[in-house]
Order: sequence, then structure tokens, then C-alpha cells
Amino acid sequence: MYTLYGMTGSGNCYKPALLMRQLGIPYTWIEVDLLRGATHSPDFLALNPTGKVPVLQLPDGRCLSESNAMLCLLAEGTPLLPSERWARAEVMQWLFFEQYSHEPAIATVRFWVHYLGKAEAWRDRIRETRPKGYAALQRMELQLCRSDYLAGDAYSIADIALYAYTHVADQGGYRLGDFPRIEAWLRRVQRQPGYFAMADRP
Amino acid sequence: MYTLYGMTGSGNCYKPALLMRQLGIPYTWIEVDLLRGATHSPDFLALNPTGKVPVLQLPDGRCLSESNAMLCLLAEGTPLLPSERWARAEVMQWLFFEQYSHEPAIATVRFWVHYLGKAEAWRDRIRETRPKGYAALQRMELQLCRSDYLAGDAYSIADIALYAYTHVADQGGYRLGDFPRIEAWLRRVQRQPGYFAMADRP
Repeated sequence: MYTLYGMTGSGNCYKPALLMRQLGIPYTWIEVDLLRGATHSPDFLALNPTGKVPVLQLPDGRCLSESNAMLCLLAEGTPLLPSERWARAEVMQWLFFEQYSHEPAIATVRFWVHYLGKAEAWRDRIRETRPKGYAALQRMELQLCRSDYLAGDAYSIADIALYAYTHVADQGGYRLGDFPRIEAWLRRVQRQPGYFAMADRP
Repeated sequence: MYTLYGMTGSGNCYKPALLMRQLGIPYTWIEVDLLRGATHSPDFLALNPTGKVPVLQLPDGRCLSESNAMLCLLAEGTPLLPSERWARAEVMQWLFFEQYSHEPAIATVRFWVHYLGKAEAWRDRIRETRPKGYAALQRMELQLCRSDYLAGDAYSIADIALYAYTHVADQGGYRLGDFPRIEAWLRRVQRQPGYFAMADRP
């Protein structure tokens, strides 16, 4: 059985949990309260020396970090990670886009505002970061004018990766109303079999 | 024939160029001067709507962005991207680590200092970012105590991805002398067949 160490409400932790539910892979969830420093305990650092959740422990005990690496591992051999060369390349492109251009702006501002309550204190910082988040949303909107899902016409782990923080972007003060294609896509993701809400304990 | 749009001296652009040389894949290099805004021209945005280099144009004309997605596409089926499940997962883990925890600290400070000449003007910013870069180097050093290459005992695209900005980290003021395992690993990478220096036109 897999074990997933994560914090409820964290998009990065939600990604592999959502995928495992959708693929019917059983797993045990272990709640780790990073806000109280639990990711820096010696026990946790033995699982992941970078001190970050999520961590996916395989049935043989080996531990993997990086949420999108977990998606690749778990989805291999399923339609959610296509084997066709170009389709796979598009999925990978979106996974790296998510970690480089989307998460650091969308998830980070949400963390500052929603978890740390720093909307006022860190106003300049937020003002500086937000255009990057909007640029990422704009890029997604453009793609979703072309196809129903990010990496083409089929649901894939690219959608799981981008859904995680996009659907709660408003908690960081992002207005999604200007992105009708994104809003329609969020609803399409929510209608996928096995979907569960991020607020629920995975 | 592949076409690679990039800027000489950019680590992200160097990655797919180095891999193609090492795999013996012929390609045409097109120099794009992002410092002069060339990535925001309408012609370039048609290739990549995010306005970033590198862009890899496939022989059929399709364009891929995200340097690490290019590495995955080009290395598929070769020993540089192992097919064994866990070995592949480790490679992917390092590729995402590179884009999330390494590049934004190591490459970004190098860009500010080396290309923009802002070492003095952006001192606070640099002081704030540098510990993140050292944490990433520390994580690599720990891994390189365990294995000769990042994802185990064989050279892979994880090494190419991390080599790109690590070997020029000193241009951003990082001291690599405290990381003997990294220094030995840099030399091992430089001895790989097909290696060429980043300063040379790819």
C-alpha cells in the first residue's frame, strides 16, 4: 500500500491523492502540519531531506518527493499519461509550466493571504507577484480556447497538476471571472470520475 | 531536423543542446537575444506564447517549450531517461526539483548579477534569495554522497538539468568550494562523451 504524507488544503499534496482516487489505487494518508513545523522534524527529514510535503512512500518503503514526479510515476501506463510521443511531451510541458510559472505565483500568494493572513503586511510583494499569476492564467486560457483539456482533448495529469491551485486561486485574490475557458475547464475536471474536493481529508 | 531557439549562455537553452549533441541528434541553433526583447516579438510569440526561450521546433513544425520537457522528449528510449519505474521516478524528481527549488534561486541570482549587473542595487533581494540556492546545493551535495550521479549511478537527464546552472553558480556569487561532491560531479559531467561548454555557441 502507498502512504502519502501531506497537508489537507495543500494543492501539491492534493494532486497525487486525487490521481490515486481516480485510478483506484488504495493509499494511507498521513496528515503533516507544515504550519507547525512538522516537516522539519528529524523523522520527516529522513523521509524527505528537503523538508517539504507531499512525500509518497511506496509499498517497498522508498520515498519520492515532488508532486509532479509522483503524478508521472503513478499515471505511467494509464491514459492519464499518454505514451504517444507528442501527447506525452505536451503533458510534460504543462507539468513544468505549473511548477515554474504557475505555482510560485498562484499558490504562493494564496499561502501568504489565506494561510499566513499577510494580505496587508506583504502588499508590495503580492502586488509584484500577481501579474505573474495572471500571465500563467492567461496562458492557460489561450490553450483552453484550443482544446478541452490542457494537453489536448483528453483529461491527463496536466489537468490535475494545474487544477490543484487554479481552482482556489480566488483565495489569493485572483479573479477567475475574466477567464471563462478556465472556469468551464474547472467544471469539466470536477465531473471526472473519482473526483473529490480538496477541502476534504484525502 | 530539429530547430532550437535559444540564447547562448542560458542554462535552460543549453540543456537540450547538450543532450542533442550527446545523443548525436542534428539540430539547427537560432540565437534569440532575450536581453533585447526578441522573445516578445510577434514572430517569437507564435512559437511560444509564454515568450521564453528555449523553444524546440520538431521536424514537423510543432513547438515545445519548457527545457526539461524537451529533455524528456529527446531522451525517451535512451539510457539517459531510464524506463525502469523507480529509476525514472528519481530522474523526474530531480527535474522538478531543478525547476522549483534550484533554478529560481541559482539561475535568477546569476541573471541579476551577471547579465543585469544589479549586484549592488538588488542587494536585499539577492541576500534573501541566496539561502534558497544554498539549500538546493546542500540537497545535491547530500545526494552526491550517496551516488555518483543525481539519480543513481548512471548519468541521466537529471544531471544535464542540474549541471546547466550549477556549474556557473559562481557567476551569481555562490561559492561552490564548500561542496566537494558537487565539484567532483561537475568534472564527471564534463567528461561525458559529446560534452561541450555552455559558453560556446550551441
